[in-house]
Amino acid sequence: MSPRTVLTFCAFFVSVLGARYDPTWDSIDSRPLPAWYDEAKLGIFIHWGVFSVPSINSEWFWERWLGSRTPEVVNFMKNNYRPDFTYADFAPQFTAEFFDANQWADMFSASGAEYVVFVSKHHEGYTNWPSNHSFNWNSMAVGPKRDIVGELAAAIKTNTSIHFGLYHSLFEWFHPLYLQDKENNFSTQNFVIDKTMPELYELVNTYKPDVIWSDGDWEASSDYWQSKQFLSWLYTDSPVKDTVVTNDRWGSDSTCHHGGFFTCQDRYQPGKLQPRKWENAMTIDKRSWGYRRNAPLSDYLSTQELLATFIETVSFGGNMLMNVGPTKEGTIHPIFEERLRDVGAWLNVNGEAIRSSRPWTSQNDTITPHVWYTMKNSDVYAILLDWPTGSTLSLGAPMTQTGTTVQLLGYSGNFMWKARSGRGIDITIPPISANKIPCKWAWTFKLSGLATMY
Amino acid sequence: MSPRTVLTFCAFFVSVLGARYDPTWDSIDSRPLPAWYDEAKLGIFIHWGVFSVPSINSEWFWERWLGSRTPEVVNFMKNNYRPDFTYADFAPQFTAEFFDANQWADMFSASGAEYVVFVSKHHEGYTNWPSNHSFNWNSMAVGPKRDIVGELAAAIKTNTSIHFGLYHSLFEWFHPLYLQDKENNFSTQNFVIDKTMPELYELVNTYKPDVIWSDGDWEASSDYWQSKQFLSWLYTDSPVKDTVVTNDRWGSDSTCHHGGFFTCQDRYQPGKLQPRKWENAMTIDKRSWGYRRNAPLSDYLSTQELLATFIETVSFGGNMLMNVGPTKEGTIHPIFEERLRDVGAWLNVNGEAIRSSRPWTSQNDTITPHVWYTMKNSDVYAILLDWPTGSTLSLGAPMTQTGTTVQLLGYSGNFMWKARSGRGIDITIPPISANKIPCKWAWTFKLSGLATMY
Amino acid sequence: MSPRTVLTFCAFFVSVLGARYDPTWDSIDSRPLPAWYDEAKLGIFIHWGVFSVPSINSEWFWERWLGSRTPEVVNFMKNNYRPDFTYADFAPQFTAEFFDANQWADMFSASGAEYVVFVSKHHEGYTNWPSNHSFNWNSMAVGPKRDIVGELAAAIKTNTSIHFGLYHSLFEWFHPLYLQDKENNFSTQNFVIDKTMPELYELVNTYKPDVIWSDGDWEASSDYWQSKQFLSWLYTDSPVKDTVVTNDRWGSDSTCHHGGFFTCQDRYQPGKLQPRKWENAMTIDKRSWGYRRNAPLSDYLSTQELLATFIETVSFGGNMLMNVGPTKEGTIHPIFEERLRDVGAWLNVNGEAIRSSRPWTSQNDTITPHVWYTMKNSDVYAILLDWPTGSTLSLGAPMTQTGTTVQLLGYSGNFMWKARSGRGIDITIPPISANKIPCKWAWTFKLSGLATMY
Amino acid sequence: MSPRTVLTFCAFFVSVLGARYDPTWDSIDSRPLPAWYDEAKLGIFIHWGVFSVPSINSEWFWERWLGSRTPEVVNFMKNNYRPDFTYADFAPQFTAEFFDANQWADMFSASGAEYVVFVSKHHEGYTNWPSNHSFNWNSMAVGPKRDIVGELAAAIKTNTSIHFGLYHSLFEWFHPLYLQDKENNFSTQNFVIDKTMPELYELVNTYKPDVIWSDGDWEASSDYWQSKQFLSWLYTDSPVKDTVVTNDRWGSDSTCHHGGFFTCQDRYQPGKLQPRKWENAMTIDKRSWGYRRNAPLSDYLSTQELLATFIETVSFGGNMLMNVGPTKEGTIHPIFEERLRDVGAWLNVNGEAIRSSRPWTSQNDTITPHVWYTMKNSDVYAILLDWPTGSTLSLGAPMTQTGTTVQLLGYSGNFMWKARSGRGIDITIPPISANKIPCKWAWTFKLSGLATMY
Repeated sequence: MSPRTVLTFCAFFVSVLGARYDPTWDSIDSRPLPAWYDEAKLGIFIHWGVFSVPSINSEWFWERWLGSRTPEVVNFMKNNYRPDFTYADFAPQFTAEFFDANQWADMFSASGAEYVVFVSKHHEGYTNWPSNHSFNWNSMAVGPKRDIVGELAAAIKTNTSIHFGLYHSLFEWFHPLYLQDKENNFSTQNFVIDKTMPELYELVNTYKPDVIWSDGDWEASSDYWQSKQFLSWLYTDSPVKDTVVTNDRWGSDSTCHHGGFFTCQDRYQPGKLQPRKWENAMTIDKRSWGYRRNAPLSDYLSTQELLATFIETVSFGGNMLMNVGPTKEGTIHPIFEERLRDVGAWLNVNGEAIRSSRPWTSQNDTITPHVWYTMKNSDVYAILLDWPTGSTLSLGAPMTQTGTTVQLLGYSGNFMWKARSGRGIDITIPPISANKIPCKWAWTFKLSGLATMY
Repeated sequence: MSPRTVLTFCAFFVSVLGARYDPTWDSIDSRPLPAWYDEAKLGIFIHWGVFSVPSINSEWFWERWLGSRTPEVVNFMKNNYRPDFTYADFAPQFTAEFFDANQWADMFSASGAEYVVFVSKHHEGYTNWPSNHSFNWNSMAVGPKRDIVGELAAAIKTNTSIHFGLYHSLFEWFHPLYLQDKENNFSTQNFVIDKTMPELYELVNTYKPDVIWSDGDWEASSDYWQSKQFLSWLYTDSPVKDTVVTNDRWGSDSTCHHGGFFTCQDRYQPGKLQPRKWENAMTIDKRSWGYRRNAPLSDYLSTQELLATFIETVSFGGNMLMNVGPTKEGTIHPIFEERLRDVGAWLNVNGEAIRSSRPWTSQNDTITPHVWYTMKNSDVYAILLDWPTGSTLSLGAPMTQTGTTVQLLGYSGNFMWKARSGRGIDITIPPISANKIPCKWAWTFKLSGLATMY
Repeated sequence: MSPRTVLTFCAFFVSVLGARYDPTWDSIDSRPLPAWYDEAKLGIFIHWGVFSVPSINSEWFWERWLGSRTPEVVNFMKNNYRPDFTYADFAPQFTAEFFDANQWADMFSASGAEYVVFVSKHHEGYTNWPSNHSFNWNSMAVGPKRDIVGELAAAIKTNTSIHFGLYHSLFEWFHPLYLQDKENNFSTQNFVIDKTMPELYELVNTYKPDVIWSDGDWEASSDYWQSKQFLSWLYTDSPVKDTVVTNDRWGSDSTCHHGGFFTCQDRYQPGKLQPRKWENAMTIDKRSWGYRRNAPLSDYLSTQELLATFIETVSFGGNMLMNVGPTKEGTIHPIFEERLRDVGAWLNVNGEAIRSSRPWTSQNDTITPHVWYTMKNSDVYAILLDWPTGSTLSLGAPMTQTGTTVQLLGYSGNFMWKARSGRGIDITIPPISANKIPCKWAWTFKLSGLATMY
Repeated sequence: MSPRTVLTFCAFFVSVLGARYDPTWDSIDSRPLPAWYDEAKLGIFIHWGVFSVPSINSEWFWERWLGSRTPEVVNFMKNNYRPDFTYADFAPQFTAEFFDANQWADMFSASGAEYVVFVSKHHEGYTNWPSNHSFNWNSMAVGPKRDIVGELAAAIKTNTSIHFGLYHSLFEWFHPLYLQDKENNFSTQNFVIDKTMPELYELVNTYKPDVIWSDGDWEASSDYWQSKQFLSWLYTDSPVKDTVVTNDRWGSDSTCHHGGFFTCQDRYQPGKLQPRKWENAMTIDKRSWGYRRNAPLSDYLSTQELLATFIETVSFGGNMLMNVGPTKEGTIHPIFEERLRDVGAWLNVNGEAIRSSRPWTSQNDTITPHVWYTMKNSDVYAILLDWPTGSTLSLGAPMTQTGTTVQLLGYSGNFMWKARSGRGIDITIPPISANKIPCKWAWTFKLSGLATMY
């Protein structure tokens, strides 16, 4: 039995027996990651909140206006609002009149993503559900007058096979109880007791998410946040104990060290294999997680760039969590939709090399640049970001043997190849007409029957 | 020593020693009422909040819209707002751009009132100060962007000799934690622990009010509200322990039974002497405490009516707390101002009969209707709501003796009088020219040197 | 036949025959004023428009903001609005949700006024009716979505006997066609041809007003304005030719010289008898015709002051046009309502001395100050603003004879009097109890059977 | 001299002499079209106005709400606005805070377009410039507070070589003067005299546009509209008489019959050569000219579809006017930007076959579908919408001769070819690697030295 198989077996065994996890990092870290997450590879991140009303600069709008006082934001307010306008004054304009959770669900499905992570509450503290702990600062009480989390959860769960997850910020920039605790060097926990923990339990019990994507932890330790107690409950007694995955942002001592999968930092790209499952949380709009009304085309990653990042991420064993920012009206703008549908179209051809794949011994090729490897079962996939310029594609990593076959996903028939001296393979690229090429942006060569190298 | 003197002495003694009051009604009820309150007689009540934005029906707007569904309110919303408009959406329109606490203080001074009670938070839960316990639902965060309680406290304390007091609602119609506690038959106290008590302590410690005027208590007992603990602290350890007065609305078991002065019910007018100090909290707009934009003149009490109520109230030993409702812009409308200044003008002439007065043995006269009595030192004041129709004013209650004198406040010289047989006095009213009469609305005859009747 | 009778006869004769008036001042000035107007004495002026939205400073808000740049207005905009806010941006907030023309009509009736003059269009150019000549800048298209002039006309005509009149501004501060004509030294008349004249004809034909109260004329001559042509039509061919009255503001050559009754200047009070009927157009709010949200009580004239002005005005043969400013919501504020009802209450007692009265030979008394005279039939009315301080009221103007009688309006019985030597009368004022005096503010002595002095 | 050369010569001659055009269709139609227009081939149409505020359904929002009552629009208003909301109430929300004319100019340049046509006023009547004839219903007075036409004209003229043009609607759905004229069966012309003509002259004199793109003419004849007088002036005396081009929408008798180039109907595609220059005015958003906030990706034409339409249009001698709808904030959304830049990228490679080209004898090929022809000088361009599926491209239309050469625009070297029997050519397509193909979407074969066929 391979170590992987043992691990899978144990995970199953433990889940059947109903494992208990103590509020210690050792115990929490010992929990096997539910398998669906690693297999999924692609998730959609969605940042929506009151920041989607001013909708410039980023979802950090409030902080940059009144905290760090970024000129772009300060000037925008000065030029476009009455002097006494407050951030909370924006909330009634969060109208969400076009929000249709089913449309979103369809769009996410079309992208090929297998999970979504929706911002239930960002650092502004506004809850996208009618929380009992955010009186008149939630989506039912001011603005949309709707349970946004609830509607999206229902649409995702009813119409798709996508896993539904929730982002949640532990801290809130301007919450007075938090600021008090902070001033007390986190020796008091009034904010955590009154606000964070009650709402996290409420979220899990009400919406049963498969992902809790924690954030906003960095100013204090996991002891302050009571994260370990929460995770202990989440993994042991919560209604989602068997399926839920979490990340690592549970305290300044936790990020990149403890918890579930590692996110380490935004747009995390470690560049080598990692001992622990990790995720690259990134954005289609290069500069913001929240929608920016004034973003030009050049701020959006092209499909080409998105796929390059995605393929590299998967090759190193990571998942990619690709962010879109809906408008205050509730639409996901066509430029995002186009990217999502493009990625989905690509996955329709190349998904075999991605979904449920695992890293191969090599991640990228030694001869031809921009070639990334994955494997599944005993097949190895070489994914090319550039179509070969000549009639031979030379790869240095694979070790061939008799019976090795080479195919192009989406294209019928086997390709001719020759072993390179020592190691490697030269694949003959026939003249494939521009109208026969199976996809755009990146192409996958499937190498079957290679010599085992380990 | 009269019982009154003993009481005053004890109160002083206790305050010097620093009395301790336990969280029991017996102990709390044993505290002597600080003398300033009884002496003041007239207070101004001010209802201001987000309800001042829609500003129709009353300060109960929210409840009548979405709770009891009063047609006037339901239709107003239907006819004038988008279907998804929420109550919290009103808050940004609470602009208060004309609010000038010094102007208000001047106006209150001109009314002759000696205390004000300002609504710090009504049943809607919106706090007129930047509370740590009402994130983004307070006057600094949404709407005025100002610490209204703070500005008013400073203006009152700096510019006037008026005592500054605060109204505070224990319950909040739609607070989810309160609704949960209620559903639990008040066996849980999450709302009280998270919200009510923290903000009450915050209010007292920050603004040091001389009155805490509690309200919104009636659905639960003082045990649920933790009122006795709060009052114990307020009377014993708070920064206002020596001066603060409170009312009786601290729980369903408390109103009209325990606490400080009794308010029993709105517009309370017991009609006989009371063993305990009481207050008639009433409104100039007959139908509402909050400002109503569409109130016609006929809904405002005339100065005549206000003074009739006030004089009767004082005669029975009560204080009158007369309510005005500011506009969302921060003005107190001229129709209110006119009433306040009229009352002040009347007190400039007749204040001697009111301020620091105490009830006399009779409250109203036995012969002439609409004559009310007060006394101070050994003088008795007969206050007439109607000017005598003939040349003799006959009063049945006073017992004259040699040396009794009769004067009209604001008019020079003594009036002729004759004892009535048995008891009473006939005062000769000379032809006083319409242009010599010292005031309008009500007139005070001061009777000195009466025979003591007790 | 007295000259007055002849005049009345001629007016009637001419109206029956259907007089024609040429577009010359001689002809226009020759038209007899319809009798109802002189008899009415009191009118209500109503200023309502988009200026009622910002509702500070005055109805000249726009001009003072962007024309003369009054600091109060400039700063108000700076402090309360986004930098690019325009005046037209105010219009959607002119909501008029409480406007009930029938309520207004009742209130005007209660004031005792016999005509109203409603601002159909002020210098801002916004029309309070759906004019064909003010596309999207009228009360049907933006703001109230109602024909305000039409609703008020119907209510007044249906429910009351009050004459309905309309104010109309010839010029518009910022209309580009007007500004062009002005730049051309009024050698062009594009504004008049396209805008002013079409809408004036439209107003008259649609609403058939009994008063056209013109304004905004002063920068150009009546030739520019084509006023004489309009008046010629109005007096000769219009549907209101027999009843309509107009004022004198029809061009810089016209005011105080030609037209109908003279208004000369705002708050006109000539201080002596005038050859021509005149009107004192004045405001209850001393500083503004439009409603000011931040006006304190001290800016409102008291009833005493209003009646003093009114009585003086009538005494000199004028009418008084007393202005109220409704709120943007459509209410006439209780402080105005109180004044209107007070004046009405006074007229209920003293109307005999006012309505259909005419000036007497003397206007005020030579001995006692603040006594004003009117006459009707052969009776003379002495109206006192102060109640006599002693037991004798000495008047120098009346010449008594045997049979002269003296009465107090609202009080029964005759007063004793003695002729003064030479001329004049000493009236004995009996001790009238304060509760018997028939009214407040001013009192009328009716002198019948005086010796004729002319 | 070819007829074309004669024509060009005459046009020049006439322009030097300063031709006069009478207000008759014969005279107007005789004017040669300034050459720049035919050479340009691609224009950008921009629909922006108050309709960009609600921004659903289309720029016909107002008409569909209150005229034809389209359920989508009626329900949108019912669900999202207060009952008395008017269309003009939208205008203050037309904020245009991100409008940067230079950014737009850059984007239009990048598209390869050589003219723009900007909506100066649509059927709603709102003018995007501070017209003297649209008081308080223009972009300076309400909403942006900017001269939008002026800013865009300056940016285009300063930064680009693009010709600047203006769209202008003759009629306005709800203008009362227009509705009156219409009710009078267009026997009156008040609307034309007061509104349309003054503003058209103002537009031309102020902004000197190279295109006047008229619209909204269809309910009345060119006599009613006074179009011929205007065009006579425009072509003879206006400041743009030598460069301006106009279309054909000048009256119900004019469209597709008289004027400048023919537009006939929206998305006009005649399908055969036309005697007169024509234009295909079409939209990137298939369903609307104005921006729709809720348009999904599937409503936007793909670059592929856009180019197919464009190439066909040019092949038949037309220009394409490709419409974008900016947002109320002043941005042109990235999805539009992407289309514009894609078209520009394609023109960078293939512009030689488009710009200044003229129709060839054949428009599309007789053998291979989706092949369109243009010509310039003596070269013929075959533009393929599909890349050849095999190794031979067979074209039926060209007639080869010795010396005929075949090239692919953007690709170096000549292609092998063989004459087909009778007529036509077989071009040998070598195996071109997917990474060598010079562009996407469509490819141009340049055929030089063909046998002349005419």
